[in-house]
Amino acid sequence: MSQEEKYLAHDLYKEDILGRANVSDSPELLAYYQELEKYKTGALWTIANKIEPWQPQSASVPVLWRYSDLREHVIKSADLVTPEQAGRRVVYLNNSGGKGMSTAVGLLYSGLQTMQPGESASAHAHSSSALRFIMEGRGAYTIVDGQKMLLEENDFVLTPNGTWHEHGVEPDGSQCIWQDGLDIPLVNTLEASFYKVHPELRQAVTEPVNSSIALWGAPALRPQNVGWDKPYSPLFRYQWGPTYEALQRYASIAEGSPFDDILMHYTNPLTGGHVMPTLGASMQLLRPGFVGKAHRHTGSFIYQVAKGQGYSIINGQRFDWQKRDIFCVPSWAFHEHVNTSQTEDACLFCFNDLPVIQALQLYYEEALHDNGGHQQVGG
Amino acid sequence: MSQEEKYLAHDLYKEDILGRANVSDSPELLAYYQELEKYKTGALWTIANKIEPWQPQSASVPVLWRYSDLREHVIKSADLVTPEQAGRRVVYLNNSGGKGMSTAVGLLYSGLQTMQPGESASAHAHSSSALRFIMEGRGAYTIVDGQKMLLEENDFVLTPNGTWHEHGVEPDGSQCIWQDGLDIPLVNTLEASFYKVHPELRQAVTEPVNSSIALWGAPALRPQNVGWDKPYSPLFRYQWGPTYEALQRYASIAEGSPFDDILMHYTNPLTGGHVMPTLGASMQLLRPGFVGKAHRHTGSFIYQVAKGQGYSIINGQRFDWQKRDIFCVPSWAFHEHVNTSQTEDACLFCFNDLPVIQALQLYYEEALHDNGGHQQVGG
Amino acid sequence: MSQEEKYLAHDLYKEDILGRANVSDSPELLAYYQELEKYKTGALWTIANKIEPWQPQSASVPVLWRYSDLREHVIKSADLVTPEQAGRRVVYLNNSGGKGMSTAVGLLYSGLQTMQPGESASAHAHSSSALRFIMEGRGAYTIVDGQKMLLEENDFVLTPNGTWHEHGVEPDGSQCIWQDGLDIPLVNTLEASFYKVHPELRQAVTEPVNSSIALWGAPALRPQNVGWDKPYSPLFRYQWGPTYEALQRYASIAEGSPFDDILMHYTNPLTGGHVMPTLGASMQLLRPGFVGKAHRHTGSFIYQVAKGQGYSIINGQRFDWQKRDIFCVPSWAFHEHVNTSQTEDACLFCFNDLPVIQALQLYYEEALHDNGGHQQVGG
Amino acid sequence: MSQEEKYLAHDLYKEDILGRANVSDSPELLAYYQELEKYKTGALWTIANKIEPWQPQSASVPVLWRYSDLREHVIKSADLVTPEQAGRRVVYLNNSGGKGMSTAVGLLYSGLQTMQPGESASAHAHSSSALRFIMEGRGAYTIVDGQKMLLEENDFVLTPNGTWHEHGVEPDGSQCIWQDGLDIPLVNTLEASFYKVHPELRQAVTEPVNSSIALWGAPALRPQNVGWDKPYSPLFRYQWGPTYEALQRYASIAEGSPFDDILMHYTNPLTGGHVMPTLGASMQLLRPGFVGKAHRHTGSFIYQVAKGQGYSIINGQRFDWQKRDIFCVPSWAFHEHVNTSQTEDACLFCFNDLPVIQALQLYYEEALHDNGGHQQVGG
Repeated sequence: MSQEEKYLAHDLYKEDILGRANVSDSPELLAYYQELEKYKTGALWTIANKIEPWQPQSASVPVLWRYSDLREHVIKSADLVTPEQAGRRVVYLNNSGGKGMSTAVGLLYSGLQTMQPGESASAHAHSSSALRFIMEGRGAYTIVDGQKMLLEENDFVLTPNGTWHEHGVEPDGSQCIWQDGLDIPLVNTLEASFYKVHPELRQAVTEPVNSSIALWGAPALRPQNVGWDKPYSPLFRYQWGPTYEALQRYASIAEGSPFDDILMHYTNPLTGGHVMPTLGASMQLLRPGFVGKAHRHTGSFIYQVAKGQGYSIINGQRFDWQKRDIFCVPSWAFHEHVNTSQTEDACLFCFNDLPVIQALQLYYEEALHDNGGHQQVGG
Repeated sequence: MSQEEKYLAHDLYKEDILGRANVSDSPELLAYYQELEKYKTGALWTIANKIEPWQPQSASVPVLWRYSDLREHVIKSADLVTPEQAGRRVVYLNNSGGKGMSTAVGLLYSGLQTMQPGESASAHAHSSSALRFIMEGRGAYTIVDGQKMLLEENDFVLTPNGTWHEHGVEPDGSQCIWQDGLDIPLVNTLEASFYKVHPELRQAVTEPVNSSIALWGAPALRPQNVGWDKPYSPLFRYQWGPTYEALQRYASIAEGSPFDDILMHYTNPLTGGHVMPTLGASMQLLRPGFVGKAHRHTGSFIYQVAKGQGYSIINGQRFDWQKRDIFCVPSWAFHEHVNTSQTEDACLFCFNDLPVIQALQLYYEEALHDNGGHQQVGG
Repeated sequence: MSQEEKYLAHDLYKEDILGRANVSDSPELLAYYQELEKYKTGALWTIANKIEPWQPQSASVPVLWRYSDLREHVIKSADLVTPEQAGRRVVYLNNSGGKGMSTAVGLLYSGLQTMQPGESASAHAHSSSALRFIMEGRGAYTIVDGQKMLLEENDFVLTPNGTWHEHGVEPDGSQCIWQDGLDIPLVNTLEASFYKVHPELRQAVTEPVNSSIALWGAPALRPQNVGWDKPYSPLFRYQWGPTYEALQRYASIAEGSPFDDILMHYTNPLTGGHVMPTLGASMQLLRPGFVGKAHRHTGSFIYQVAKGQGYSIINGQRFDWQKRDIFCVPSWAFHEHVNTSQTEDACLFCFNDLPVIQALQLYYEEALHDNGGHQQVGG
Repeated sequence: MSQEEKYLAHDLYKEDILGRANVSDSPELLAYYQELEKYKTGALWTIANKIEPWQPQSASVPVLWRYSDLREHVIKSADLVTPEQAGRRVVYLNNSGGKGMSTAVGLLYSGLQTMQPGESASAHAHSSSALRFIMEGRGAYTIVDGQKMLLEENDFVLTPNGTWHEHGVEPDGSQCIWQDGLDIPLVNTLEASFYKVHPELRQAVTEPVNSSIALWGAPALRPQNVGWDKPYSPLFRYQWGPTYEALQRYASIAEGSPFDDILMHYTNPLTGGHVMPTLGASMQLLRPGFVGKAHRHTGSFIYQVAKGQGYSIINGQRFDWQKRDIFCVPSWAFHEHVNTSQTEDACLFCFNDLPVIQALQLYYEEALHDNGGHQQVGG
């Protein structure tokens, strides 16, 4: 079939199954289809099987981004552009391979940002929600709506939808690198993107440093009369220390999940729910020697290795990872995780669009039953 | 600039504004960009201004689909394909102009379906949510999870996410046409589409006919001990008669909205919220001579004229409409509605993705302040 | 045992059951008890079995108030006192028999109020929630926060917690009688009673008459942009006509409950929940010849016969009722209802403290299993 | 007026204020009242002003229970009765003075329980909710639905509504004393009390010791896939150490409340709300030299001094307190707290019925404006 004929064919998606569209092209039908196009319409049966697949078809593929590959390029960006020029000096993860796309997986964006001592970027606000996860360096900080937070390795930080926020590194710090995560592709797809630059480019620090931790960072305690009516967590910084301790305590008494071993979701302490309306995040601990089973579910997931080493098998492909590597699991891809150390924990930070998937009632999940619950690794 | 050079240029989106990316290409940078591509990465500043626009950029345009154009084609489809072949015999609305797209506006799908007396389609279920709005004919019915509903003109009907559903026309009916609305593009974009054909192709009617109205269709009354734990309305059919009466009663005592006059959202009577997690719907009454003001907001909207005639100005373009015409308002498009009759009500049915926009905290709204709140109509 | 000895005895409630307090008085213990009293303390084991009964012990008894007994006394009150003198001219139902108590059952208050044509009472507000149910007469009205409602027989009306409200009868009406229901004993027990007289004694009518019905009285429809952030229903008047129709429709397709046949709760249309935070209400239809089975549950319930005749057996005692009679079912009392007509429906209006019992997680329920589910009467 | 005449008088509560009942007795009215009593009814205007007071009238008075008074009596109870005999060996706080009442304040019960090394009480369950606060001793434990918790001084522990629970002291511990708090008077008043003794008298420990802390005791983290659908907190033990640290962190950045200085509510980490549906609790820190202002609000409150010394003025009466003293603040009583140390923190544990008051929309609050916000003491 020539390219042109292919273009004209309308029965590419027909399936010979009762209940599915199964209409073969005929001259009469092709003429009808042409007629419909005049009125900005089409015949559903020519595309029904394509737009209603039997199960999710992700536009993303599993990818592992090795930190050993990316680090030098991230650091080099500091020589090439200033924060003022770049807005934000970020190397972003590009699942699709093409130029100009910004999707790390599904409708999630991610990138690695670097700043040098004394640098800071201008303050802005957007209708997208953002988070960051600190990878290396001393002296990084984020200011969110007047609250300055000092950041350390493996800290997880929120800059929610609509907040004024900006980042920098203290003059006495070192070059810092962190991972950004945003829902930009989602918000663009939903056609709801707004962007503002702060009128004074920098915002004032009006709250005590780290105040959100002092107010909201205690276990199962709520400060009296501290109002909060925002749709996201009042706690903006989740520190690595208490998080790792919590995982260890949980590990000490629990059997864990066959898929994820010991996993905890970061929560909004005011609701027990996700940290932001469109982005969720978790930290999980794979105990020494843990060999997980495979399952799949809807939602898109980006992992960063916070500690240890191991591998994950994603849709039949094995990805070996070590600390600071990043990988993604597309929607409905089977995945299983393994900690290859017999003595050390491995920890995986993850962020995802679960709040969206759950709020819209689109969460589906399935364990792999064949082969003892393990995927065959492709040849 | 040649096409090839354009392809290579990376500074297409730069803006000379503090706080925005403003980096000009240089040989060194272009080499850097090429290097980044090897690792499935890119430099954020080359695309930041594109992916973070100042305000929403809709991929859809305002369109009016005239029923006088579409009706004959819809009717003709009944001669061309059977429901068995087509799955569903639908002419869908195609905003994008291209072949094979299925978007009526934003991430909403819509189409016109026809069935002849005695015909019925096979039962299926999908993770998409669906609704229909009855346009003409006698004897149409829908069966949802064992409940059969008889449908009349201007009735609004739900076939929610995950339910088994099927449509038909009674043998003693007439050829029927209705509008379908679905969230297929949203669910595909979120990579969560599942589709099932009913194992027996037709489902049994296990509930009394129209039972959801008997149980849930009364004002502010809830049947005792009738359990419901689904995330969508237990009321599946919203009848035109009581809806129009309600609008008239509301109109008799209220000033109405300057933008929408008398508008009521169909609700889930168990929660007071939207009818389904991803699709909302409303019916609005424009009183004789009503001249609305312009505003814009996020969310995508498809209207069908249920009664009367008038026009809407959408992003500066005037669309005259009469009964059964369909038109769309893309996200963040200014729009204003006018009832051109001085004696008769005009009624607009509308469905939309407001539940998504609201659940994800992405609703923004703005009135037009210039020109007395009215758009200039383009030349 | 003399009265004085009884007073001194502390082992009145002991039970010879493992896990229950079972301590006999001794001189040493009696001395100890006396010592404890000095410090405003006591020994738990002397009262534990009393304050922790095996199952609820209601302070109320089942009572039937015959309208044929009460009506003349209610009417007579109009000759004896003016609304100005009385505040409200009400004969209240007194379960406890003693003077000065105000409990119709449990922590519910109820009374019958009468007004003559042209009379009205002054406006007031209180932290108690109130409702009324119209029994007879033409021209009654209630004004709630500026909304005037015209009332007809078997209408159910809210005057919620904190609202300014007042009642009257139009000059061209007839002497009216209605039933009041309030949570006064509850609010007093919780020590949260506030009372205010309107500074101008009468409030202005600032809203269209019956506006809450025009806005909120339609099935599964919500007016756009009509804000409501109160913790009670925005619909203040529930009309008899649509309610009875709804019950008949429900009855036409449903088997009904073995205990209650066809029962619908009045709801807050914005939430699907109870009409007020402390008071719930329902209307139920017993089809001709219905013979209900017995069950019991927590919560206190006051019924008024809105239509028909029959009887209820409550804790083994039979109460024959006809239109306008009122009776109560105390917490945890077995009850079963019978419509003695083979041709006419019987309808029971009911109000209760279910919202309290449910919010505080204290709802328990149990069917009677012996004797085919029917109680033995008296004996 | 003789006692008998007083008994017959019905106009005891009349008030000469427009909008209030103001009816004087007359022979005709007294005859009418007698007639009404025959039908278990009364005239509202004879009691309206009493049952609808202008503001809350608490049946409780402010009381301070000095630990120096109570401790020896509590310890002595261990010589007088065994846990088997007593059920629970508790000295309860009796606000009302009379024998056989069990109210510490409002509808709250409280008592001091003691157990000796190796003792344990039988397991039971009730529809009341309970909590305890550990005062002294080593080796105390509580088992709740199979979870054993080891308890230390100033720990706060839940035994919610419906759970099987039992207490004991390890054989190698010391004599322990803790404070019990329950909603028994509330549940009795609502006529919803159920009580069960465990069929085997003791329950098995089926969960890891302190497991609720390992699962739910981390800040803003939620274990994945650990289901919880109960209406109370899954965290049963709130440890003193992290609580005191949290208060100190909060104090380091906040101005605090003029009434309560630094106060944190214990929360259900799954909802951010109160720990149980009927009982709330808090710990507050009065910084050295703190002198609080006076306010009053609805709700009943029992305090225990967890640390330090100071005084509270309650309805104009001064109560000096030190560690382990207990005092109560009745509904709508003005209260202000002072830390008399200039160097040491004072900490007040408190439990209350705020969840009830708030759920039923009965919370009202008022600051004292006169005299610089301070009450005049006694006189």
